[in-house]
Amino acid sequence: MTTKTPPETFAVIGTTPPRVDAGAKVTGAAVYGVDVMRPRMAYGRILRSPHAHARIVRIDTRRAEAMPGVLAVATAADLPAAVDDTANDRYARDATLASERVLYHGHPVCAIAATTPEIAEDALALIDVDYEPLEPVLDVCRAMERDAPILHPDLRTRSLAGMGTTPTNVAEHLRFEIGDPDKAMDAADVVVEREFRTATVHQGYMEPHAATAEWSPEGTLTIWATTQGGFSVRDRVHELLHLPMADIRVVPTEVGGAFGGKNVGYADIVAALLARKANRPVRVVMSREETLLATGPTSGTWMRVAVGARRDGRITAAKAELRFEAGAFPGAPVGSGANCMFAPYDIPNGRIDGYGVVVNKPSTGDYRSPGATQAVFAAEAVLDEVATLLGMDPIAFRLLNCAHDGTARITGGVHEHIGIEQVLEATRDSAHYRAPCPESTGHLRRGRGVALGFWGNWGARSSVTLTVAEDGTVSLLTGSVDITGTRTSLAMQAAETLGLPLEMIAPAMGDTHSTGYSDNSGGSRTTMATGIAVVRAAEDLLARMKERVAAWWGVDASTVTYALGAFTSTTTGDTMSWAEAASHQFETGGAVRGQGDVNVRKWGAAYATHIVDVEVDTETGGVRLLRHTVVQDVGRAIHPGQVASQMQGGTSQGIGWALYEGYAYDAQGRMLNANLLDYKMPTYRDVPTIETILVEVPYPGHPYGIRGVGEAPIVAVPAAIAAAIHDAVGVRPTRLPMDPVQILELLGIIDP
Amino acid sequence: MTTKTPPETFAVIGTTPPRVDAGAKVTGAAVYGVDVMRPRMAYGRILRSPHAHARIVRIDTRRAEAMPGVLAVATAADLPAAVDDTANDRYARDATLASERVLYHGHPVCAIAATTPEIAEDALALIDVDYEPLEPVLDVCRAMERDAPILHPDLRTRSLAGMGTTPTNVAEHLRFEIGDPDKAMDAADVVVEREFRTATVHQGYMEPHAATAEWSPEGTLTIWATTQGGFSVRDRVHELLHLPMADIRVVPTEVGGAFGGKNVGYADIVAALLARKANRPVRVVMSREETLLATGPTSGTWMRVAVGARRDGRITAAKAELRFEAGAFPGAPVGSGANCMFAPYDIPNGRIDGYGVVVNKPSTGDYRSPGATQAVFAAEAVLDEVATLLGMDPIAFRLLNCAHDGTARITGGVHEHIGIEQVLEATRDSAHYRAPCPESTGHLRRGRGVALGFWGNWGARSSVTLTVAEDGTVSLLTGSVDITGTRTSLAMQAAETLGLPLEMIAPAMGDTHSTGYSDNSGGSRTTMATGIAVVRAAEDLLARMKERVAAWWGVDASTVTYALGAFTSTTTGDTMSWAEAASHQFETGGAVRGQGDVNVRKWGAAYATHIVDVEVDTETGGVRLLRHTVVQDVGRAIHPGQVASQMQGGTSQGIGWALYEGYAYDAQGRMLNANLLDYKMPTYRDVPTIETILVEVPYPGHPYGIRGVGEAPIVAVPAAIAAAIHDAVGVRPTRLPMDPVQILELLGIIDP
Repeated sequence: MTTKTPPETFAVIGTTPPRVDAGAKVTGAAVYGVDVMRPRMAYGRILRSPHAHARIVRIDTRRAEAMPGVLAVATAADLPAAVDDTANDRYARDATLASERVLYHGHPVCAIAATTPEIAEDALALIDVDYEPLEPVLDVCRAMERDAPILHPDLRTRSLAGMGTTPTNVAEHLRFEIGDPDKAMDAADVVVEREFRTATVHQGYMEPHAATAEWSPEGTLTIWATTQGGFSVRDRVHELLHLPMADIRVVPTEVGGAFGGKNVGYADIVAALLARKANRPVRVVMSREETLLATGPTSGTWMRVAVGARRDGRITAAKAELRFEAGAFPGAPVGSGANCMFAPYDIPNGRIDGYGVVVNKPSTGDYRSPGATQAVFAAEAVLDEVATLLGMDPIAFRLLNCAHDGTARITGGVHEHIGIEQVLEATRDSAHYRAPCPESTGHLRRGRGVALGFWGNWGARSSVTLTVAEDGTVSLLTGSVDITGTRTSLAMQAAETLGLPLEMIAPAMGDTHSTGYSDNSGGSRTTMATGIAVVRAAEDLLARMKERVAAWWGVDASTVTYALGAFTSTTTGDTMSWAEAASHQFETGGAVRGQGDVNVRKWGAAYATHIVDVEVDTETGGVRLLRHTVVQDVGRAIHPGQVASQMQGGTSQGIGWALYEGYAYDAQGRMLNANLLDYKMPTYRDVPTIETILVEVPYPGHPYGIRGVGEAPIVAVPAAIAAAIHDAVGVRPTRLPMDPVQILELLGIIDP
Repeated sequence: MTTKTPPETFAVIGTTPPRVDAGAKVTGAAVYGVDVMRPRMAYGRILRSPHAHARIVRIDTRRAEAMPGVLAVATAADLPAAVDDTANDRYARDATLASERVLYHGHPVCAIAATTPEIAEDALALIDVDYEPLEPVLDVCRAMERDAPILHPDLRTRSLAGMGTTPTNVAEHLRFEIGDPDKAMDAADVVVEREFRTATVHQGYMEPHAATAEWSPEGTLTIWATTQGGFSVRDRVHELLHLPMADIRVVPTEVGGAFGGKNVGYADIVAALLARKANRPVRVVMSREETLLATGPTSGTWMRVAVGARRDGRITAAKAELRFEAGAFPGAPVGSGANCMFAPYDIPNGRIDGYGVVVNKPSTGDYRSPGATQAVFAAEAVLDEVATLLGMDPIAFRLLNCAHDGTARITGGVHEHIGIEQVLEATRDSAHYRAPCPESTGHLRRGRGVALGFWGNWGARSSVTLTVAEDGTVSLLTGSVDITGTRTSLAMQAAETLGLPLEMIAPAMGDTHSTGYSDNSGGSRTTMATGIAVVRAAEDLLARMKERVAAWWGVDASTVTYALGAFTSTTTGDTMSWAEAASHQFETGGAVRGQGDVNVRKWGAAYATHIVDVEVDTETGGVRLLRHTVVQDVGRAIHPGQVASQMQGGTSQGIGWALYEGYAYDAQGRMLNANLLDYKMPTYRDVPTIETILVEVPYPGHPYGIRGVGEAPIVAVPAAIAAAIHDAVGVRPTRLPMDPVQILELLGIIDP
């Protein structure tokens, strides 16, 4: 790990203490969603569609209900009718339990609660469902054709022109434009246009979705769930079950991996329905097969990108068409992909058309910088080809074209407080980039690629309470779920702001009853936005403590100052330590708590480059990574160790996406590889030690300059590997994964 | 239930909605301390002394440790040494696990954690402890003798004169004095002096003590426990295990009865020690036998009381000597007994000597108005006899002598805002008192008694947070444990203050991480003091909501008013409903929360009279209650149904204490009746329908006039029953319980 900007002098920020959750996670003591136990708890299992597309003719649950040990059977009929029956409401209910149609292999049809998981599993076979199979559509381009099977007869295309009038699978058509791209493209000295495809891929979190629901006889509901945010679970329960929000208490558990895939739950509503019918707590834990079949992977795509440039290397025009699969229900990350693909560049003329298209696959979910990795794979591949055509060094080409503060963007708005140039310079100056690329030998061809990725990050709502105990130690409670070590990075900001040692801060996750609204931990927001809430809470706590010390001394609060663990009276010169002040708190009133509730509306974007050296085996088509460096503008690294881990983790996932992963379906739309033997995620043998270079361009909107860091490092990985493959063997992959079949096809060794 | 003061016009206060915890408690869904489950949880059991007094020669745990399934064995050696080795520290540690001596039958000596409760239980028999028995002392008077066996060689008497110099069992000697009691007693026209004894009695909560402890690998500790206050558990863990406070998270569970007996835990520290050694969560649940043997019952006592009065009925002098058993360690409620015994009266000359004395019984704990019931039994018996001697109606006698605002008290201070006179008048005017006493027939002698009791109540620290959700519903979180329905009575105060329907408030208990410091729910403080915190939090919430509405409207917050669910701009006349304002909250900032943290230092006392009609069977000595009315100044009844339930519950416990209950020991100090067959608590067959008259004399220090109501109604029950027995059969019981043996002795039918 290298950091490129010497930090200011901080006491805690910039150090790398152990994570507070580390011990529990490595020893198995951590309690995940799957571990929740409640007295009298029953076990829920879900019956899923064997068809990719079918009409449900009949569901007969009688045989299952009669089985000893079965406590409840739930179907879509148990979901309350929507208050106003909008399409989105129907989709949300049908995604939970199918009503009239099943729309993908694995679509939940029915759920059973029983006294043991085995009984529940066995009882699934006793549910009789008659299906009338319908023709499935699995491919985004086929789904857009006029004669394609229609998933939702009521679906119309939403676009700038308004709502369409004819049945379609195209849920949305977005268009972004700047300048005159057609004219500029015609005038360009060099134009490259290519088409791309990417497979459906899964986040690959270790812990499957799990939720436990318990109703009180008064009709209030508690849900323990593995989730990126308890409040989003509460919101969805409120919407689907029509409970008052304050009657729903969601307790987030430890999360065994999420990466966006736990922004939505797949077990919580079902658990709640079963628990209500069974009149018992019910835990629903999904299997690995169910996790792959029926949670939210990210979109498979088809993309076309064209870039035009002048002979001097300046990009003059860009065009893109993005077709993103939404899966069974609308909601593809095509807007986000469009927003990211050309973001790092100053492109005066551009147009992006984006289509979100329903197909008979599981409804897509968020996956680490949703949509960006796909779109950037396409954009960077074309840009790399342009640079090659012009004979330019890829970094020099990007430095020439990179955006600066004030640069207007194709997708709207202008750049502010960006650190692209610093990242590119650090990449260019890195030991890796300056080192020669390893030589090829025989059929082992070696090459180097670079690519640049953008992620916009997020702010939004966060809530923090800091409470000081009589011994001066401080409890930090936040509504933000810790999926990446944020308890530690938040405690560090509290310690820094309060001028106390980190050991005095005890951070913990709250539930929806014990904290203010906090948005999901996603969009790389938590250390940044919840960090602002921490600083606000710490300032509030300090102000209140000053009032108490002033009351103790009998002076005016405005004459009490605080620094580094000691209060001082500017009038008398008296001092009092933090711990002594804490010990006196009850003599001057009740408990002292500071609260910070924010809705952060501005935040800093993040950019990351990758330098990759690969070795392509031209006999097998196998690609091996020899060296991988990620360079990223991290704003300010609160905990450089965790930041580097995020960069390494994102890169590792990007490697899996680039080389190995992809959902495989048969012609009937049945998933063929819903297990971790056949769905091939990278292991430690596939991932080299990933070198990290942290470039610190502090974001001025955060007191400590933080930018989100978790998502940017995945974005350009496939693009960089593709460029390295081209450098090694002279052909350009245009599909993800870049598996041996594709490589051997490109090399002409096997037929496409 | 009758209420004597028409309440002001409130929307919610004064109504009797269902308790929010009612359903869970009657259906078995409530999760008590005994129900807590954690993954990998082990089970702890405690080995207890079979001796009342013995030296521990040797503890050999090797055979137990070798037993398959045993995970950990803990002894006193596992407790960290005290930081400063004071007597109190030693007592606290020795009370947890005995080190050198055992001081009562049931004293914990050793604890075992095993994979099943059965293995833990069986392994107890494999612990070899060699004891050297010592002479026990069970009786408070014997323990005060010069040649009595000494429990604590280092114990010296603490008194106004300072610390004593000789070994003793008398831990404290208190003295309170007003006027010249000796001279006044000599000058009195009538003097009555009597001696009394009361047995050791238990609170009789249904749920035994239970605690589950879990350590993180980082050394932080979570404890789930049935307790009257999570923070007091945290404090004791902090003291005994030397953990930073914020590293201890105590989660209070539902409580299945407490009555003061769960102000201290008996399973929590042991569970923590076992969990640390076993490296697993450990749950310790005490059995009924252990609960009776080794938790904190209230003091057995010996008391002498003398009262002098003028012929016209005015009391001129009172004297008392109170000898209260503390059990094995110092801490008898003798000061509290002294404070209560003459409190209702204007007595110009008085002296009370109080002694807290250690004996070889379990260390006493709090029991509903600790010390008051014993002392008032003695005081009221003597006062009743004085009234009888003077030929005065007992209520007229008390009205003549009752204290008023400004009356000086024997134990110091003066009365403020008291409602004694109103209570006495309501008693006199009640249907019960105006009805004739049932006639005696044959050996069934019937009589009526009245008595008056005082309890001082408590204020102290409470913390409340109110958080408004987007739909306008409000979460109420408090650190106060709900042992009596306070979630409902607090939600009612929130609803009243916020001008919202009660259904919109969702109250819940927090843990020590999620709320500010809150003292134990004891001293009848919660609805009152935590109620003040609720009102503060509601006012804070309203102020913040006004700011948000003002921001939305673009007006100054000072021009926004709020009443009954609607905000109004005094400048524009615009209005906005609470729910609409809630729905806009995030457009004007982060989440909106109101906080209330108080340390209430003034509170109102409570007085209650009892009118009892009894039937004494002069052949069997049995006493049957025919009619029972309790009249109490409740300040303001937030939830009259719950207030009446408190009055009925306190009365029922008083009936058990009066007639049935008492610890029985053999000569070696072994408890003979540590089970609910032989320790005879009253059942529904023993308790008549208890009539309640709520007198509302609002306490001005609370926004709604609340006084604590939970404890006052037990205080005078034995005294009233004793008076009724005298009225029925002409003899005066002086011992509790007033069992058939005592009655038959008094009637001369059997020899004492």
